[in-house]
Amino acid sequence: MKKRAVVSFLSDYGLQDEFVGVCHGVMLRIAPDTRIVDIHHNILRQDIRHGAVVLQQSVGYIPDSVHLAVVDPTVGSDRRAVVIGTSWGEIFVGPDNGLLVPAAESTGGVRRAFHITDNRFLLTPVSRTFQGRDVFAPVTAHVANGVDPSEFGPQIPADELVPLEIPEAWIHEDHLHAEVLQVDRFGNLQLNFGSELLEKIGLGDEEALEVRLEGHRLRVPFVGTFSDVDAGSFVLVQDSYRHMSLAVNKGDAAAKLRARTSSTAIIGPIARND
Amino acid sequence: MKKRAVVSFLSDYGLQDEFVGVCHGVMLRIAPDTRIVDIHHNILRQDIRHGAVVLQQSVGYIPDSVHLAVVDPTVGSDRRAVVIGTSWGEIFVGPDNGLLVPAAESTGGVRRAFHITDNRFLLTPVSRTFQGRDVFAPVTAHVANGVDPSEFGPQIPADELVPLEIPEAWIHEDHLHAEVLQVDRFGNLQLNFGSELLEKIGLGDEEALEVRLEGHRLRVPFVGTFSDVDAGSFVLVQDSYRHMSLAVNKGDAAAKLRARTSSTAIIGPIARND
Amino acid sequence: MKKRAVVSFLSDYGLQDEFVGVCHGVMLRIAPDTRIVDIHHNILRQDIRHGAVVLQQSVGYIPDSVHLAVVDPTVGSDRRAVVIGTSWGEIFVGPDNGLLVPAAESTGGVRRAFHITDNRFLLTPVSRTFQGRDVFAPVTAHVANGVDPSEFGPQIPADELVPLEIPEAWIHEDHLHAEVLQVDRFGNLQLNFGSELLEKIGLGDEEALEVRLEGHRLRVPFVGTFSDVDAGSFVLVQDSYRHMSLAVNKGDAAAKLRARTSSTAIIGPIARND
Repeated sequence: MKKRAVVSFLSDYGLQDEFVGVCHGVMLRIAPDTRIVDIHHNILRQDIRHGAVVLQQSVGYIPDSVHLAVVDPTVGSDRRAVVIGTSWGEIFVGPDNGLLVPAAESTGGVRRAFHITDNRFLLTPVSRTFQGRDVFAPVTAHVANGVDPSEFGPQIPADELVPLEIPEAWIHEDHLHAEVLQVDRFGNLQLNFGSELLEKIGLGDEEALEVRLEGHRLRVPFVGTFSDVDAGSFVLVQDSYRHMSLAVNKGDAAAKLRARTSSTAIIGPIARND
Repeated sequence: MKKRAVVSFLSDYGLQDEFVGVCHGVMLRIAPDTRIVDIHHNILRQDIRHGAVVLQQSVGYIPDSVHLAVVDPTVGSDRRAVVIGTSWGEIFVGPDNGLLVPAAESTGGVRRAFHITDNRFLLTPVSRTFQGRDVFAPVTAHVANGVDPSEFGPQIPADELVPLEIPEAWIHEDHLHAEVLQVDRFGNLQLNFGSELLEKIGLGDEEALEVRLEGHRLRVPFVGTFSDVDAGSFVLVQDSYRHMSLAVNKGDAAAKLRARTSSTAIIGPIARND
Repeated sequence: MKKRAVVSFLSDYGLQDEFVGVCHGVMLRIAPDTRIVDIHHNILRQDIRHGAVVLQQSVGYIPDSVHLAVVDPTVGSDRRAVVIGTSWGEIFVGPDNGLLVPAAESTGGVRRAFHITDNRFLLTPVSRTFQGRDVFAPVTAHVANGVDPSEFGPQIPADELVPLEIPEAWIHEDHLHAEVLQVDRFGNLQLNFGSELLEKIGLGDEEALEVRLEGHRLRVPFVGTFSDVDAGSFVLVQDSYRHMSLAVNKGDAAAKLRARTSSTAIIGPIARND
């Protein structure tokens, strides 16, 4: 298979430990010319869904790469280690726990998947607690060097991979029942729907919407960017991944509302008699 | 224009999100051989002045590079995106909000500046909330590839760039009225003056000075390095950027004094009758 | 001497400042083709032993490199800056305060050491507060370029390097008196002994052990990996560096026990009449 110049790397390892650096070292020993892009290492600890959301949104900006992703709460158990190739040519390496699935679906869908079992490509003895170092990083580097995914072990039918669904907002009459997918450093709350769902319930042209979230009930203008409202005011914008996002101009919506990942939100029309 | 081997990258994106990684990915796709040096991504959120201070102090250590800097509280508004070339040959890419100006002045001054408008070099559609990814990163990578700054859009007269001044300490009789420019991980407080200003008011040869800051009144020896005093003691030293810095040997001056960026300080001679 | 393709870099500089980025910039200017692997920059502030533990454990995964390490509480004093070559061919650059010694001993032992004094290789004037930038980074880059360690200054006998010992657990009757070496992002507590010491006191085949730590008294199963117990339960596992580690499956042992680096622990057999 062709060599890959770039490896992307996402994990919940944090930067308070040597985990990420050691994985870099292992990869560079095997594939010295590979460029490693650290997408994100502060995935919420052991939160597979959070990792899956970020990986899915990022992968389009680092195309034609090998994508190493490790959020692995059952490391060392009999959960499988896998290499997945998609129809658009992306390759994903990581645990078979759902983490890789939404990103694979966003890049053409799973074309073939393999269970990593061949010790020739691993650091042995493989530890039971740090398989990023002993399994996933070396396999990723070998893929970057052009080793075909089929060489790592037996094929797995795509429908036998552990599934994961990222929940989408659902419609109830003229309201959306939504959820916070991610909170960024600025306290912006990414919601699990885009403007097309607002259009579907006839709210696409509203200038403002009602948002109920964590006990708050807000009237929020729906505008183009943060600075279209005064500093300190709430705003609904389409974020850079085409999701709707609840934010505060020059402020921190998450702190103001005490909201976090998985907080639920109800979005609907402004009640006329308010 | 000549290619640049190194890109420096400074932002307030933090490392809790995928922003920095995605910008790396975008740059490597366009300029695969470029080396990216992450100067600092924990600039205080939306604090343009903090970003400008760090960029100005760092740029001399990463010369002959393209410098990408993003602290951008009015992203998506009509604030301009710019490329600036300086007389010493440095190139800066970022928002026209003052962030780039002190660093440009430290490297020969603005020689020419251009408003980034040409969509050919951008990721389109350009989002209104993440222009690091869609505007600044791709333009930086094209500059690294040798594209001349004039190709990105119309020229802007240097005096029409949004200005920013980093405040300098001022003299009142035999005292300096100063300010904390930065607080580092060790709790050292970088002040906005160097030893030459102490000499100007006749305090250059003092062995100790009086520092008033956040309600504290300290007698602080003025020495060469932290360990010239006992552990736990305050010290005034010249820091590595030739600013005066208030520190505690093996301790944390910021925590001890509850001081932070922009805290004001008054520095003067020891009162003789104390 | 041969060139080195990879530099590893460990420090207590944190990622809240520009220190790490500026050192990268300095190195890339001198050695443009070198790859820099950031092992860890969140070593506990000024904690030489913590840095030494991490460096020793990591170095085996980034072999055949130049290893730059900076934890330097007495920067600017008369502590020496050194380059150390080991019998296995690793090169370490950093302060002579013990930081480099355990890693050197793990890679064949000190073969030769040199006091860095030759200004030709430094950024001058050398500041007294940021010698990572002015001394250690440039020397590291010159070593990566193939400059022989002997060129940086006079040789130092190995036994005149400042020593550092990482404490090992000690045996008292059928108990081990141990210490927490490191706490990772997941709250796992790495202890300062391996399974061979348990075997020595006849506990190698026990299914569970008693652990006393920070006022707690726990009966902890000794298993292969975290998920061998229920979520929320304590577990003793062999970690990926072959140390014993006290953890909570899908939980945070450090938070649960209020434990931290250097907490002491007593490990022994389960009292039969419990």
